[in-house]
Amino acid sequence: MNKIQDPKSQASDPVKITWHQQSVARKEHEQLHGHRGCVVWFTGLSGSGKSTIANLVDHMLHKEGFHTFLLDGDNIRHGLCASPTLLADGYGREFSERFGLGFSEQDRKENIRRIGAVARLFCSAGIVTLTALVSPYRDDRDAVRHQVEEEGRKGDFIEIFVDTPLEVCESRDPKGLYKRARAGELQGMTGIDAPYEPPPSPELKLDGSNHSAETLAGQVIAELKRRKVFEPGS
Amino acid sequence: MNKIQDPKSQASDPVKITWHQQSVARKEHEQLHGHRGCVVWFTGLSGSGKSTIANLVDHMLHKEGFHTFLLDGDNIRHGLCASPTLLADGYGREFSERFGLGFSEQDRKENIRRIGAVARLFCSAGIVTLTALVSPYRDDRDAVRHQVEEEGRKGDFIEIFVDTPLEVCESRDPKGLYKRARAGELQGMTGIDAPYEPPPSPELKLDGSNHSAETLAGQVIAELKRRKVFEPGS
Repeated sequence: MNKIQDPKSQASDPVKITWHQQSVARKEHEQLHGHRGCVVWFTGLSGSGKSTIANLVDHMLHKEGFHTFLLDGDNIRHGLCASPTLLADGYGREFSERFGLGFSEQDRKENIRRIGAVARLFCSAGIVTLTALVSPYRDDRDAVRHQVEEEGRKGDFIEIFVDTPLEVCESRDPKGLYKRARAGELQGMTGIDAPYEPPPSPELKLDGSNHSAETLAGQVIAELKRRKVFEPGS
Repeated sequence: MNKIQDPKSQASDPVKITWHQQSVARKEHEQLHGHRGCVVWFTGLSGSGKSTIANLVDHMLHKEGFHTFLLDGDNIRHGLCASPTLLADGYGREFSERFGLGFSEQDRKENIRRIGAVARLFCSAGIVTLTALVSPYRDDRDAVRHQVEEEGRKGDFIEIFVDTPLEVCESRDPKGLYKRARAGELQGMTGIDAPYEPPPSPELKLDGSNHSAETLAGQVIAELKRRKVFEPGS
Protein backbone atom coordinates (compact mmCIF):
# COMPACT_ATOMS: atom_id res chain seq x y z
CA MET A 1 0.00 0.00 0.00
CA ASN A 2 1.32 3.36 -0.84
CA LYS A 3 0.99 6.26 1.54
CA ILE A 4 2.86 8.98 -0.26
CA GLN A 5 1.12 11.64 -2.33
CA ASP A 6 -1.65 9.31 -3.30
CA PRO A 7 -4.53 11.60 -4.21
CA LYS A 8 -7.04 8.78 -3.99
CA SER A 9 -6.34 8.09 -0.32
CA GLN A 10 -5.87 11.69 0.73
CA ALA A 11 -8.53 11.75 3.43
CA SER A 12 -7.42 8.61 5.21
CA ASP A 13 -3.69 9.07 4.63
CA PRO A 14 -1.86 9.79 7.90
CA VAL A 15 1.01 11.36 5.96
CA LYS A 16 -1.23 14.15 4.72
CA ILE A 17 -2.44 14.93 8.22
CA THR A 18 0.68 14.77 10.33
CA TRP A 19 3.05 17.03 8.46
CA HIS A 20 3.29 20.44 6.81
CA GLN A 21 3.26 20.44 3.03
CA GLN A 22 5.70 23.37 2.82
CA SER A 23 9.28 23.22 3.99
CA VAL A 24 10.23 24.71 7.35
CA ALA A 25 8.89 28.27 7.28
CA ARG A 26 11.08 31.33 7.39
CA LYS A 27 9.72 32.22 10.81
CA GLU A 28 10.75 28.84 12.19
CA HIS A 29 14.29 29.30 10.88
CA GLU A 30 14.38 32.74 12.46
CA GLN A 31 13.15 31.39 15.79
CA LEU A 32 15.96 28.85 15.81
CA HIS A 33 18.52 31.56 14.98
CA GLY A 34 17.08 34.07 17.42
CA HIS A 35 17.03 36.84 14.83
CA ARG A 36 15.50 37.82 11.49
CA GLY A 37 16.96 37.21 8.08
CA CYS A 38 17.63 40.12 5.72
CA VAL A 39 19.64 41.13 2.66
CA VAL A 40 22.35 43.76 3.15
CA TRP A 41 23.32 44.81 -0.36
CA PHE A 42 26.57 46.76 -0.76
CA THR A 43 26.97 48.64 -4.04
CA GLY A 44 29.76 50.85 -5.31
CA LEU A 45 32.64 51.13 -7.74
CA SER A 46 35.46 48.61 -7.87
CA GLY A 47 37.91 49.70 -5.16
CA SER A 48 35.25 51.62 -3.23
CA GLY A 49 35.81 49.38 -0.22
CA LYS A 50 32.51 47.48 -0.30
CA SER A 51 34.03 43.99 -0.03
CA THR A 52 36.33 45.05 2.78
CA ILE A 53 33.48 46.63 4.72
CA ALA A 54 31.07 43.75 4.02
CA ASN A 55 33.66 41.24 5.24
CA LEU A 56 34.19 43.22 8.42
CA VAL A 57 30.45 43.50 9.05
CA ASP A 58 30.15 39.75 8.44
CA HIS A 59 32.86 39.00 11.01
CA MET A 60 31.56 41.45 13.58
CA LEU A 61 28.00 40.13 13.35
CA HIS A 62 29.19 36.52 13.45
CA LYS A 63 31.12 37.29 16.64
CA GLU A 64 27.91 38.65 18.13
CA GLY A 65 26.24 35.31 17.37
CA PHE A 66 24.29 36.28 14.26
CA HIS A 67 23.86 33.66 11.53
CA THR A 68 25.36 35.40 8.51
CA PHE A 69 26.56 34.61 5.02
CA LEU A 70 28.50 36.74 2.57
CA LEU A 71 27.80 36.17 -1.11
CA ASP A 72 31.08 37.17 -2.60
CA GLY A 73 30.93 38.25 -6.24
CA ASP A 74 34.31 36.81 -7.19
CA ASN A 75 33.59 33.39 -5.64
CA ILE A 76 30.23 33.18 -7.34
CA ARG A 77 31.87 33.93 -10.66
CA HIS A 78 33.54 30.52 -10.19
CA GLY A 79 30.27 28.69 -9.61
CA LEU A 80 26.72 29.87 -10.16
CA CYS A 81 27.81 32.71 -12.46
CA ALA A 82 30.87 31.11 -14.02
CA SER A 83 32.31 32.45 -17.27
CA PRO A 84 31.79 30.65 -20.58
CA THR A 85 35.43 29.55 -20.44
CA LEU A 86 35.07 28.00 -16.99
CA LEU A 87 31.82 26.28 -17.92
CA ALA A 88 33.19 24.93 -21.19
CA ASP A 89 35.40 22.57 -19.22
CA GLY A 90 32.54 20.39 -18.07
CA TYR A 91 29.82 21.21 -20.58
CA GLY A 92 29.55 21.73 -24.30
CA ARG A 93 30.47 24.99 -26.00
CA GLU A 94 26.90 25.80 -26.98
CA PHE A 95 25.84 25.34 -23.36
CA SER A 96 28.65 27.42 -21.89
CA GLU A 97 28.16 30.26 -24.34
CA ARG A 98 24.47 30.44 -23.55
CA PHE A 99 24.65 30.27 -19.76
CA GLY A 100 28.18 31.45 -18.94
CA LEU A 101 28.45 35.08 -17.85
CA GLY A 102 30.91 37.76 -18.91
CA PHE A 103 30.69 41.49 -18.30
CA SER A 104 28.36 42.75 -21.02
CA GLU A 105 25.30 44.67 -19.83
CA GLN A 106 23.07 41.61 -20.36
CA ASP A 107 25.48 39.32 -18.57
CA ARG A 108 25.81 41.71 -15.64
CA LYS A 109 22.03 41.94 -15.38
CA GLU A 110 21.81 38.17 -15.22
CA ASN A 111 24.65 38.03 -12.69
CA ILE A 112 22.74 40.38 -10.38
CA ARG A 113 19.47 38.57 -11.02
CA ARG A 114 20.94 35.18 -10.09
CA ILE A 115 22.73 36.48 -7.00
CA GLY A 116 19.60 38.39 -6.00
CA ALA A 117 17.56 35.18 -6.25
CA VAL A 118 20.12 33.37 -4.09
CA ALA A 119 20.17 36.21 -1.54
CA ARG A 120 16.40 35.87 -1.34
CA LEU A 121 16.73 32.15 -0.58
CA PHE A 122 19.30 32.81 2.15
CA CYS A 123 17.04 35.51 3.57
CA SER A 124 14.14 33.09 3.72
CA ALA A 125 16.43 30.66 5.54
CA GLY A 126 16.65 33.35 8.23
CA ILE A 127 20.24 34.30 7.43
CA VAL A 128 21.70 37.81 7.55
CA THR A 129 22.83 37.79 3.93
CA LEU A 130 25.52 40.22 2.77
CA THR A 131 26.44 40.87 -0.84
CA ALA A 132 29.29 42.98 -2.16
CA LEU A 133 28.89 43.52 -5.89
CA VAL A 134 29.47 46.57 -8.07
CA SER A 135 25.83 46.17 -9.25
CA PRO A 136 26.03 49.31 -11.36
CA TYR A 137 22.44 49.44 -12.70
CA ARG A 138 19.66 50.94 -10.61
CA ASP A 139 16.93 48.84 -12.23
CA ASP A 140 18.74 45.60 -11.41
CA ARG A 141 19.16 46.50 -7.74
CA ASP A 142 15.55 47.67 -7.55
CA ALA A 143 14.37 44.39 -9.09
CA VAL A 144 16.18 42.46 -6.34
CA ARG A 145 14.71 44.75 -3.67
CA HIS A 146 11.27 44.22 -5.11
CA GLN A 147 11.59 40.44 -5.11
CA VAL A 148 13.11 40.22 -1.63
CA GLU A 149 10.41 42.45 -0.15
CA GLU A 150 7.59 40.88 -2.14
CA GLU A 151 8.40 37.45 -0.76
CA GLY A 152 9.37 38.73 2.69
CA ARG A 153 8.71 42.00 4.48
CA LYS A 154 9.34 45.64 3.71
CA GLY A 155 12.67 46.47 5.28
CA ASP A 156 14.23 43.10 4.41
CA PHE A 157 16.41 44.71 1.74
CA ILE A 158 19.01 47.19 2.97
CA GLU A 159 20.95 48.96 0.25
CA ILE A 160 24.28 50.40 1.27
CA PHE A 161 25.98 52.72 -1.14
CA VAL A 162 29.74 52.87 -0.63
CA ASP A 163 30.26 56.30 -2.10
CA THR A 164 33.93 56.60 -2.90
CA PRO A 165 35.05 59.01 -5.65
CA LEU A 166 36.37 57.39 -8.80
CA GLU A 167 39.80 59.00 -8.40
CA VAL A 168 40.17 57.41 -4.94
CA CYS A 169 39.04 54.00 -6.25
CA GLU A 170 41.42 54.35 -9.15
CA SER A 171 44.35 55.24 -6.90
CA ARG A 172 43.64 52.06 -4.87
CA ASP A 173 42.99 49.84 -7.91
CA PRO A 174 43.20 46.65 -5.78
CA LYS A 175 42.76 44.32 -8.76
CA GLY A 176 44.66 46.44 -11.30
CA LEU A 177 41.46 46.76 -13.35
CA TYR A 178 41.52 50.55 -13.75
CA LYS A 179 45.07 50.40 -15.03
CA ARG A 180 44.08 47.78 -17.59
CA ALA A 181 40.99 49.77 -18.57
CA ARG A 182 43.01 52.99 -19.03
CA ALA A 183 45.50 51.06 -21.14
CA GLY A 184 42.62 49.87 -23.32
CA GLU A 185 43.12 46.22 -22.36
CA LEU A 186 39.74 45.97 -20.63
CA GLN A 187 36.37 47.05 -21.99
CA GLY A 188 33.22 47.85 -20.04
CA MET A 189 34.93 48.92 -16.81
CA THR A 190 32.40 50.59 -14.53
CA GLY A 191 33.34 54.23 -14.02
CA ILE A 192 35.60 54.31 -17.07
CA ASP A 193 33.64 53.21 -20.13
CA ALA A 194 30.55 51.73 -18.44
CA PRO A 195 28.09 53.63 -16.27
CA TYR A 196 27.57 53.47 -12.52
CA GLU A 197 24.10 54.58 -11.48
CA PRO A 198 24.19 55.65 -7.82
CA PRO A 199 21.17 54.70 -5.69
CA PRO A 200 18.91 57.75 -5.25
CA SER A 201 17.76 56.68 -1.78
CA PRO A 202 19.84 53.91 -0.25
CA GLU A 203 19.19 52.92 3.35
CA LEU A 204 22.74 54.06 4.10
CA LYS A 205 25.41 55.99 2.23
CA LEU A 206 28.99 55.62 3.39
CA ASP A 207 31.75 58.08 2.73
CA GLY A 208 34.31 55.58 1.54
CA SER A 209 37.25 57.97 1.25
CA ASN A 210 37.60 59.54 4.70
CA HIS A 211 37.23 56.77 7.25
CA SER A 212 38.78 53.45 8.13
CA ALA A 213 36.94 50.27 7.14
CA GLU A 214 36.32 49.55 10.84
CA THR A 215 34.59 52.90 11.30
CA LEU A 216 32.41 52.31 8.25
CA ALA A 217 31.56 48.75 9.29
CA GLY A 218 30.56 50.13 12.68
CA GLN A 219 28.28 52.63 10.96
CA VAL A 220 26.63 49.79 9.03
CA ILE A 221 25.98 47.75 12.15
CA ALA A 222 24.64 50.78 14.02
CA GLU A 223 22.26 51.51 11.15
CA LEU A 224 21.06 47.89 10.96
CA LYS A 225 20.35 47.93 14.68
CA ARG A 226 18.69 51.36 14.52
CA ARG A 227 16.36 49.94 11.87
CA LYS A 228 15.66 46.89 14.04
CA VAL A 229 16.55 44.72 11.06
CA PHE A 230 17.36 41.72 13.21
CA GLU A 231 14.44 41.85 15.57
CA PRO A 232 11.75 39.21 15.16
CA GLY A 233 8.12 40.15 14.66
CA SER A 234 6.70 43.17 12.84
CA MET B 1 43.78 59.53 4.28
CA ASN B 2 42.36 56.36 2.92
CA LYS B 3 42.70 53.14 4.84
CA ILE B 4 40.84 50.68 2.66
CA GLN B 5 42.57 48.37 0.20
CA ASP B 6 45.35 50.83 -0.48
CA PRO B 7 48.19 48.69 -1.74
CA LYS B 8 50.71 51.45 -1.11
CA SER B 9 50.09 51.57 2.64
CA GLN B 10 49.62 47.86 3.17
CA ALA B 11 52.29 47.39 5.80
CA SER B 12 51.20 50.23 8.04
CA ASP B 13 47.48 49.87 7.44
CA PRO B 14 45.68 48.68 10.58
CA VAL B 15 42.79 47.38 8.46
CA LYS B 16 45.02 44.83 6.79
CA ILE B 17 46.27 43.54 10.12
CA THR B 18 43.18 43.35 12.27
CA TRP B 19 40.76 41.44 10.12
CA HIS B 20 40.47 38.35 7.91
CA GLN B 21 40.41 38.95 4.18
CA GLN B 22 37.96 36.07 3.54
CA SER B 23 34.41 36.00 4.74
CA VAL B 24 33.54 34.00 7.85
CA ALA B 25 34.88 30.50 7.20
CA ARG B 26 32.67 27.46 6.89
CA LYS B 27 34.12 26.06 10.09
CA GLU B 28 33.10 29.18 12.00
CA HIS B 29 29.54 28.93 10.70
CA GLU B 30 29.47 25.28 11.75
CA GLN B 31 30.78 26.11 15.21
CA LEU B 32 27.97 28.61 15.68
CA HIS B 33 25.38 26.04 14.50
CA GLY B 34 26.88 23.20 16.49
CA HIS B 35 26.87 20.85 13.50
CA ARG B 36 28.34 20.39 10.04
CA GLY B 37 26.81 21.54 6.78
CA CYS B 38 26.09 19.02 4.02
CA VAL B 39 24.02 18.48 0.87
CA VAL B 40 21.32 15.80 1.01
CA TRP B 41 20.28 15.28 -2.59
CA PHE B 42 17.02 13.41 -3.25
CA THR B 43 16.56 12.07 -6.76
CA GLY B 44 13.72 10.08 -8.33
CA LEU B 45 10.80 10.17 -10.70
CA SER B 46 7.99 12.68 -10.39
CA GLY B 47 5.60 11.21 -7.85
CA SER B 48 8.27 9.00 -6.28
CA GLY B 49 7.77 10.75 -2.94
CA LYS B 50 11.07 12.64 -2.79
CA SER B 51 9.55 16.05 -1.96
CA THR B 52 7.31 14.57 0.71
CA ILE B 53 10.19 12.72 2.33
CA ALA B 54 12.60 15.68 2.03
CA ASN B 55 10.03 17.96 3.66
CA LEU B 56 9.56 15.52 6.51
CA VAL B 57 13.31 15.14 7.02
CA ASP B 58 13.60 18.95 6.99
CA HIS B 59 10.94 19.30 9.69
CA MET B 60 12.30 16.48 11.83
CA LEU B 61 15.86 17.82 11.74
CA HIS B 62 14.68 21.37 12.41
CA LYS B 63 12.82 20.12 15.49
CA GLU B 64 16.05 18.55 16.69
CA GLY B 65 17.72 21.96 16.43
CA PHE B 66 19.60 21.49 13.16
CA HIS B 67 19.97 24.49 10.86
CA THR B 68 18.42 23.23 7.64
CA PHE B 69 17.15 24.55 4.34
CA LEU B 70 15.16 22.83 1.62
CA LEU B 71 15.80 23.94 -1.93
CA ASP B 72 12.48 23.17 -3.51
CA GLY B 73 12.57 22.66 -7.26
CA ASP B 74 9.18 24.23 -7.91
CA ASN B 75 9.91 27.37 -5.87
CA ILE B 76 13.24 27.85 -7.58
CA ARG B 77 11.54 27.62 -10.95
CA HIS B 78 9.88 30.89 -9.93
CA GLY B 79 13.17 32.64 -9.14
CA LEU B 80 16.70 31.55 -9.94
CA CYS B 81 15.57 29.09 -12.61
CA ALA B 82 12.47 30.92 -13.86
CA SER B 83 10.97 30.07 -17.23
CA PRO B 84 11.43 32.36 -20.25
CA THR B 85 7.78 33.43 -19.88
CA LEU B 86 8.23 34.42 -16.23
CA LEU B 87 11.46 36.26 -16.97
CA ALA B 88 10.02 38.09 -19.97
CA ASP B 89 7.85 40.13 -17.61
CA GLY B 90 10.74 42.11 -16.19
CA TYR B 91 13.41 41.69 -18.85
CA GLY B 92 13.59 41.76 -22.61
CA ARG B 93 12.65 38.79 -24.77
CA GLU B 94 16.20 38.13 -25.94
CA PHE B 95 17.31 38.05 -22.30
CA SER B 96 14.53 35.75 -21.11
CA GLU B 97 14.98 33.31 -23.99
CA ARG B 98 18.68 33.03 -23.29
CA PHE B 99 18.57 32.64 -19.52
CA GLY B 100 15.07 31.32 -18.83
CA LEU B 101 14.81 27.57 -18.31
CA GLY B 102 12.32 25.08 -19.70
CA PHE B 103 12.57 21.30 -19.67
CA SER B 104 14.83 20.48 -22.59
CA GLU B 105 17.90 18.42 -21.77
CA GLN B 106 20.13 21.51 -21.89
CA ASP B 107 17.75 23.50 -19.69
CA ARG B 108 17.48 20.69 -17.15
CA LYS B 109 21.26 20.43 -17.03
CA GLU B 110 21.49 24.15 -16.30
CA ASN B 111 18.71 23.89 -13.71
CA ILE B 112 20.66 21.22 -11.83
CA ARG B 113 23.92 23.12 -12.26
CA ARG B 114 22.46 26.31 -10.77
CA ILE B 115 20.74 24.55 -7.88
CA GLY B 116 23.88 22.53 -7.27
CA ALA B 117 25.92 25.73 -7.06
CA VAL B 118 23.41 27.19 -4.60
CA ALA B 119 23.42 24.00 -2.52
CA ARG B 120 27.19 24.30 -2.35
CA LEU B 121 26.87 27.87 -1.01
CA PHE B 122 24.36 26.78 1.64
CA CYS B 123 26.63 23.90 2.58
CA SER B 124 29.54 26.29 3.04
CA ALA B 125 27.28 28.40 5.27
CA GLY B 126 27.14 25.32 7.52
CA ILE B 127 23.53 24.50 6.65
CA VAL B 128 22.07 21.00 6.26
CA THR B 129 20.87 21.56 2.70
CA LEU B 130 18.15 19.36 1.23
CA THR B 131 17.15 19.25 -2.42
CA ALA B 132 14.27 17.38 -4.00
CA LEU B 133 14.60 17.41 -7.78
CA VAL B 134 13.98 14.74 -10.38
CA SER B 135 17.58 15.32 -11.55
CA PRO B 136 17.35 12.53 -14.11
CA TYR B 137 20.89 12.62 -15.52
CA ARG B 138 23.70 10.82 -13.72
CA ASP B 139 26.41 13.13 -15.05
CA ASP B 140 24.63 16.23 -13.73
CA ARG B 141 24.28 14.77 -10.23
CA ASP B 142 27.88 13.58 -10.28
CA ALA B 143 29.03 17.06 -11.32
CA VAL B 144 27.29 18.55 -8.28
CA ARG B 145 28.80 15.88 -6.02
CA HIS B 146 32.23 16.62 -7.43
CA GLN B 147 31.90 20.37 -6.84
CA VAL B 148 30.46 20.05 -3.35
CA GLU B 149 33.16 17.62 -2.27
CA GLU B 150 35.96 19.45 -4.06
CA GLU B 151 35.19 22.64 -2.14
CA GLY B 152 34.26 20.87 1.07
CA ARG B 153 34.96 17.37 2.32
CA LYS B 154 34.32 13.87 1.01
CA GLY B 155 31.02 12.81 2.50
CA ASP B 156 29.44 16.27 2.20
CA PHE B 157 27.19 15.08 -0.64
CA ILE B 158 24.63 12.43 0.25
CA GLU B 159 22.65 11.10 -2.69
CA ILE B 160 19.32 9.53 -1.83
CA PHE B 161 17.58 7.60 -4.55
CA VAL B 162 13.83 7.37 -3.99
CA ASP B 163 13.28 4.21 -5.96
CA THR B 164 9.58 4.02 -6.75
CA PRO B 165 8.42 2.07 -9.80
CA LEU B 166 7.05 4.15 -12.65
CA GLU B 167 3.63 2.50 -12.41
CA VAL B 168 3.33 3.54 -8.78
CA CYS B 169 4.43 7.11 -9.57
CA GLU B 170 2.00 7.22 -12.44
CA SER B 171 -0.87 6.01 -10.30
CA ARG B 172 -0.14 8.82 -7.81
CA ASP B 173 0.48 11.48 -10.48
CA PRO B 174 0.30 14.30 -7.89
CA LYS B 175 0.72 17.07 -10.48
CA GLY B 176 -1.21 15.37 -13.26
CA LEU B 177 1.91 15.37 -15.40
CA TYR B 178 1.84 11.69 -16.38
CA LYS B 179 -1.73 12.03 -17.57
CA ARG B 180 -0.79 15.02 -19.71
CA ALA B 181 2.28 13.21 -21.04
CA ARG B 182 0.25 10.11 -21.96
CA ALA B 183 -2.28 12.34 -23.70
CA GLY B 184 0.55 13.86 -25.73
CA GLU B 185 0.08 17.30 -24.18
CA LEU B 186 3.49 17.29 -22.49
CA GLN B 187 6.82 16.40 -24.07
CA GLY B 188 10.00 15.32 -22.34
CA MET B 189 8.36 13.77 -19.28
CA THR B 190 10.92 11.76 -17.33
CA GLY B 191 9.97 8.09 -17.38
CA ILE B 192 7.65 8.48 -20.36
CA ASP B 193 9.57 10.04 -23.24
CA ALA B 194 12.68 11.23 -21.42
CA PRO B 195 15.18 9.02 -19.60
CA TYR B 196 15.78 8.61 -15.87
CA GLU B 197 19.26 7.36 -15.08
CA PRO B 198 19.25 5.73 -11.63
CA PRO B 199 22.30 6.36 -9.43
CA PRO B 200 24.55 3.27 -9.50
CA SER B 201 25.78 3.79 -5.92
CA PRO B 202 23.72 6.28 -3.96
CA GLU B 203 24.46 6.73 -0.26
CA LEU B 204 20.92 5.47 0.38
CA LYS B 205 18.21 3.85 -1.72
CA LEU B 206 14.65 4.04 -0.46
CA ASP B 207 11.87 1.70 -1.43
CA GLY B 208 9.29 4.34 -2.18
CA SER B 209 6.33 2.03 -2.76
CA ASN B 210 6.04 -0.04 0.40
CA HIS B 211 6.48 2.31 3.36
CA SER B 212 4.96 5.47 4.75
CA ALA B 213 6.78 8.74 4.21
CA GLU B 214 7.47 8.89 7.98
CA THR B 215 9.20 5.52 7.90
CA LEU B 216 11.31 6.56 4.92
CA ALA B 217 12.20 9.93 6.49
CA GLY B 218 13.26 8.06 9.61
CA GLN B 219 15.51 5.84 7.47
CA VAL B 220 17.13 8.95 5.97
CA ILE B 221 17.85 10.50 9.35
CA ALA B 222 19.21 7.22 10.71
CA GLU B 223 21.54 6.93 7.70
CA LEU B 224 22.75 10.54 8.06
CA LYS B 225 23.54 9.92 11.72
CA ARG B 226 25.18 6.59 10.99
CA ARG B 227 27.45 8.37 8.54
CA LYS B 228 28.21 11.07 11.15
CA VAL B 229 27.28 13.67 8.55
CA PHE B 230 26.50 16.31 11.15
CA GLU B 231 29.48 15.81 13.41
CA PRO B 232 32.16 18.50 13.38
CA GLY B 233 35.76 17.67 12.75
CA SER B 234 37.34 15.18 10.33
